Amino acid sequence: MVSIAILGATGYTALELMRILLRHSGAKIVALTSREDARPVCEVHPSLTGRLDLPLENLSPVEIAKRGECVFSCLPHAASAAITAELLENGARVIDFSADYRLDSPDVFKKWYAEDHPDPARLGKVPYGLPELFRSQLASVNLIANPGCYSTSAILPTAPLIQKGVIRPTGIIFDSKSGISGAGRKPKLNFHYPECNENFIAYGVGTHRHWPEIEQILTRFTGQAASVIFTPHLVPMDRGILTTAYCVPTDPGITQEAVESVLQEFYANEPFVQIVKTLPGTKDVSGTNCTHIAVRVVRDRVVLVSVLDNLIKGASGAAVQNFNLMFGFPETEGLV
Amino acid sequence: MVSIAILGATGYTALELMRILLRHSGAKIVALTSREDARPVCEVHPSLTGRLDLPLENLSPVEIAKRGECVFSCLPHAASAAITAELLENGARVIDFSADYRLDSPDVFKKWYAEDHPDPARLGKVPYGLPELFRSQLASVNLIANPGCYSTSAILPTAPLIQKGVIRPTGIIFDSKSGISGAGRKPKLNFHYPECNENFIAYGVGTHRHWPEIEQILTRFTGQAASVIFTPHLVPMDRGILTTAYCVPTDPGITQEAVESVLQEFYANEPFVQIVKTLPGTKDVSGTNCTHIAVRVVRDRVVLVSVLDNLIKGASGAAVQNFNLMFGFPETEGLV
Amino acid sequence: MVSIAILGATGYTALELMRILLRHSGAKIVALTSREDARPVCEVHPSLTGRLDLPLENLSPVEIAKRGECVFSCLPHAASAAITAELLENGARVIDFSADYRLDSPDVFKKWYAEDHPDPARLGKVPYGLPELFRSQLASVNLIANPGCYSTSAILPTAPLIQKGVIRPTGIIFDSKSGISGAGRKPKLNFHYPECNENFIAYGVGTHRHWPEIEQILTRFTGQAASVIFTPHLVPMDRGILTTAYCVPTDPGITQEAVESVLQEFYANEPFVQIVKTLPGTKDVSGTNCTHIAVRVVRDRVVLVSVLDNLIKGASGAAVQNFNLMFGFPETEGLV
Amino acid sequence: MVSIAILGATGYTALELMRILLRHSGAKIVALTSREDARPVCEVHPSLTGRLDLPLENLSPVEIAKRGECVFSCLPHAASAAITAELLENGARVIDFSADYRLDSPDVFKKWYAEDHPDPARLGKVPYGLPELFRSQLASVNLIANPGCYSTSAILPTAPLIQKGVIRPTGIIFDSKSGISGAGRKPKLNFHYPECNENFIAYGVGTHRHWPEIEQILTRFTGQAASVIFTPHLVPMDRGILTTAYCVPTDPGITQEAVESVLQEFYANEPFVQIVKTLPGTKDVSGTNCTHIAVRVVRDRVVLVSVLDNLIKGASGAAVQNFNLMFGFPETEGLV
Repeated sequence: MVSIAILGATGYTALELMRILLRHSGAKIVALTSREDARPVCEVHPSLTGRLDLPLENLSPVEIAKRGECVFSCLPHAASAAITAELLENGARVIDFSADYRLDSPDVFKKWYAEDHPDPARLGKVPYGLPELFRSQLASVNLIANPGCYSTSAILPTAPLIQKGVIRPTGIIFDSKSGISGAGRKPKLNFHYPECNENFIAYGVGTHRHWPEIEQILTRFTGQAASVIFTPHLVPMDRGILTTAYCVPTDPGITQEAVESVLQEFYANEPFVQIVKTLPGTKDVSGTNCTHIAVRVVRDRVVLVSVLDNLIKGASGAAVQNFNLMFGFPETEGLV
Repeated sequence: MVSIAILGATGYTALELMRILLRHSGAKIVALTSREDARPVCEVHPSLTGRLDLPLENLSPVEIAKRGECVFSCLPHAASAAITAELLENGARVIDFSADYRLDSPDVFKKWYAEDHPDPARLGKVPYGLPELFRSQLASVNLIANPGCYSTSAILPTAPLIQKGVIRPTGIIFDSKSGISGAGRKPKLNFHYPECNENFIAYGVGTHRHWPEIEQILTRFTGQAASVIFTPHLVPMDRGILTTAYCVPTDPGITQEAVESVLQEFYANEPFVQIVKTLPGTKDVSGTNCTHIAVRVVRDRVVLVSVLDNLIKGASGAAVQNFNLMFGFPETEGLV
Repeated sequence: MVSIAILGATGYTALELMRILLRHSGAKIVALTSREDARPVCEVHPSLTGRLDLPLENLSPVEIAKRGECVFSCLPHAASAAITAELLENGARVIDFSADYRLDSPDVFKKWYAEDHPDPARLGKVPYGLPELFRSQLASVNLIANPGCYSTSAILPTAPLIQKGVIRPTGIIFDSKSGISGAGRKPKLNFHYPECNENFIAYGVGTHRHWPEIEQILTRFTGQAASVIFTPHLVPMDRGILTTAYCVPTDPGITQEAVESVLQEFYANEPFVQIVKTLPGTKDVSGTNCTHIAVRVVRDRVVLVSVLDNLIKGASGAAVQNFNLMFGFPETEGLV
Repeated sequence: MVSIAILGATGYTALELMRILLRHSGAKIVALTSREDARPVCEVHPSLTGRLDLPLENLSPVEIAKRGECVFSCLPHAASAAITAELLENGARVIDFSADYRLDSPDVFKKWYAEDHPDPARLGKVPYGLPELFRSQLASVNLIANPGCYSTSAILPTAPLIQKGVIRPTGIIFDSKSGISGAGRKPKLNFHYPECNENFIAYGVGTHRHWPEIEQILTRFTGQAASVIFTPHLVPMDRGILTTAYCVPTDPGITQEAVESVLQEFYANEPFVQIVKTLPGTKDVSGTNCTHIAVRVVRDRVVLVSVLDNLIKGASGAAVQNFNLMFGFPETEGLV
């Protein structure tokens, strides 16, 4: 039984993580932290009433590492890296939900996150927790950078096609649409119910922080310099991301079937990626750790549609998948 | 053309009011106030872009009264009464959306709103702006207390039946359900999109401030001491209130048709109240100033179902209806 | 490993059942039936892609009983009882989601369902699958009547209070609100998205079929003749039921704490019922097999608010709880 | 007062049209047709109760033309053209909501709509009812092809930029997202509430019928052969379309401000088109006849975001705008 500490346990990804871990045969949640809230966790998340009876605590890194063999950090960017070094030094392994260890260099981090990186020496050396692409780098490591939700939805359909030379690494347009849980749990006017409901908006066009992450991971995986455009939108629903990707094929005569079979083969043994014939909706994967991908060829473009649950495959499910690799559990444990 | 000032113009009822007044042939919006926001109104409410070009201003009561013949106050309770006296003294007429002039006594106000009333002398003398019940009191007055949204949905179906002796004034249970715009525009965790969406909750059971208002207005209209229970709930939708009222008939053998015909007769000439056969939904009146009421007799109870749009008949539509009476316009002007 | 057949596998309760059983350590789904659809189940329910690979089949009762030791019937009323006898004769055990075995007499069935009962001899002898009230009757039986969703939400908060003499068995008003999955998967204008969305409606006032079920089960459990009013409403959301119950206390001076402690004690060892202090919302139990119950005392009434997930505790979760009792698994297996 | 007949009055666009016309000072609805439904219109659309008291009738073209000077046809494609000739011959003027008169040739019509065109001689000669682009062709005519909702959202932001040489007419990607009222009122599994709600899906990728309409109208207006990709998606909300357009600028160094000023100038005097700085949401224009357009430059692309209400500017509002031009009313009459 691996003891688990969760940092920043008041948010939605932490809640989803707890729900998954309660079903995991090899994990036991032993500590939950919050810097501001000291209530029992089931007052903060009523859905845990009768299922998890722990208080929120404001713990030092040393204390956290003493209690939890594995630490899931749901802290905001910069705050997370600020304590990770100390957690690792004290013997804990860390799965970091923030963007802190996803990018390759402190400069890129500073450009997009407007802060100096608190742990710059590790940048570029931390494995990116997308097992479908980087599984061999994830087993038994001490620190994993858990991917961004949009990033996973953009990278999974395109990375194999770039790698196999089916589509070009440049000129890809990712038009993504996300449910609102992705914006976190802090009340703001933008996410006030009557503002979001019955509303569909574009935001962060050309400025969203998952943009450099997508380009960099596509480049890291394929060895080819990726150049993309990424546009996020908000859908009036709780959870789910659908990404429509417009890609330039290397062979203008490529068929839908040919593209599908490349993806089919690449993901043949993956339990959490399915290539589907019918155009998917986010509800097809809601509540699961799965990604569905469909292919169409329209005029001179390969159009890819991917769906995932932003709180699961886009966050907490991926984290448990990474945890399973880190500690030698079957990769699907807790995720069925 | 009556010049209009709107106080507290950043909220949802103010927005709805502006939309209605833009269609009104006899009203011209000339001033909009906010104590905190000084942007053009169409930056605060993008739906007004190209339709209303006024800044938000922080104006004194004297200045407001100088500009607007009629002042619609969308200020919070207590804040509204705090400036009403000065507005009236300076010659403006006022339609007050807050609860400040709805209750009969400063004591009841203090008990429910936990503040001393800023203008206690007027309490009990201000007409309640429900034209269907109090029309004769509303023409040409200087100050009208615009009703609470839940109150209107509870009072309209029951007041005539109590008055005509069809149901008892006591033992009425009002189980009300409201869209979330009723909670206002200030971001709070309770109204954060992922908290409200796909959620139905009860709140304020036995403690909601419209409770004493309902009892008092039923008593004022019927001359019989009303005693009710009122339970509000929140529905994951923008607008609309449905109230299910359980009433004890004076005649245990009363039929649905008999109850319907009493209501039918009472509201025969009302443009904004319809007695309907099919059980109504809030969408039947969404975007309109109408209330639909249906009747059923179940066991020993008369069950009444009423629907209205909380932002229109429950707030801004009612206010314009009152404005029309106050200034001698046809009662339906701007409200078709 | 108990082999499972699911009848009527195209609907929402069947889907939810499959999701739960996929996590159950002692159950294996081996047959899925449909009379009209012969596609692979994951074409009908795309969320099962890669997780369950079975075709829909049109099977005879004999064939069903040959394959499945336990049969979950998600067939419509009357259709379900029409084959249950044959299933039982051929050695299968049956958990019936329909209303067919819930009522005590063929006459009551005919009155409310407008059909002759296909298996009248069993009526009144089949245990009602609410383990919290009837656990001792459920172990090792061959046939269980799985409760109606509204019924469970109405019965759980009130049955113990009637039994202990805290509230009267008569004069209870159940005002219930349900998400739309409760209406099933067959397209109808009433459930067409733009008709339901942003709409809250009352329906079946005085005519809903769970009304007699609630009265009869309350009477069966408490030994006192229950008389209630039941009013259902539709909430624009997928899942969840909230019932607000207005009850007459036997002691007019009863306190909230006194009522809570009676419920607290009654449900002390129940894993799936929690008595909560804060007024609950349906989302607190969404995706779980739990019911949360809150108590308020308002004027002369005890007001109870209960929430559950209509597809889980109101249907498929309850069914698996019953399955666990029937086959000797721990009652929470598959339901964490 | 122009007498109005509405064909196919049971649907959502017809309902919206009636709501708008009830506010129009120069229009009087005198006839409503349906081939299948003969109820009073307010039983079909309860929101019209007390506001419009007409029956649905199954009328011949001759009878329709006798009653209505102007006929709004909300009939399906092919059905609409099948009676238009006769309506025109009998002296009525027609505004056609269907796609029947939008395309240039019977061949293209047959390819996309899989039917022979019932009135092929008129194709290519009927003005397209987008006043912002074709106003001079619309005054006083007898027949107008009312534009498709997606088409308007795609054409308005791009047509002026192609015409002025700012972007290329080829390689444009339109990624559009629509509320579900666009799918009409006929119940189907795809639009069943629990299928759509909390779901975001792509559909008709490379096959949607507005695709050829967009290309052809862009070509007709600009005189340059347009080639685009169009992908529609469904958003779980009632109304609203947001289109994100990715365009190739002719000058790679173009700035956001330069693009904005071209659009600003083109639409300077248009009451229903606003160029906005902040990225818009569909709610900004919900319930209005307005389109908001925002511009961003990202890498080598001009990204345009447009929003409109699919039932108003995308259908019935545009139709009334066209009606105003046809009959010489101020263009904004009924549309404020």
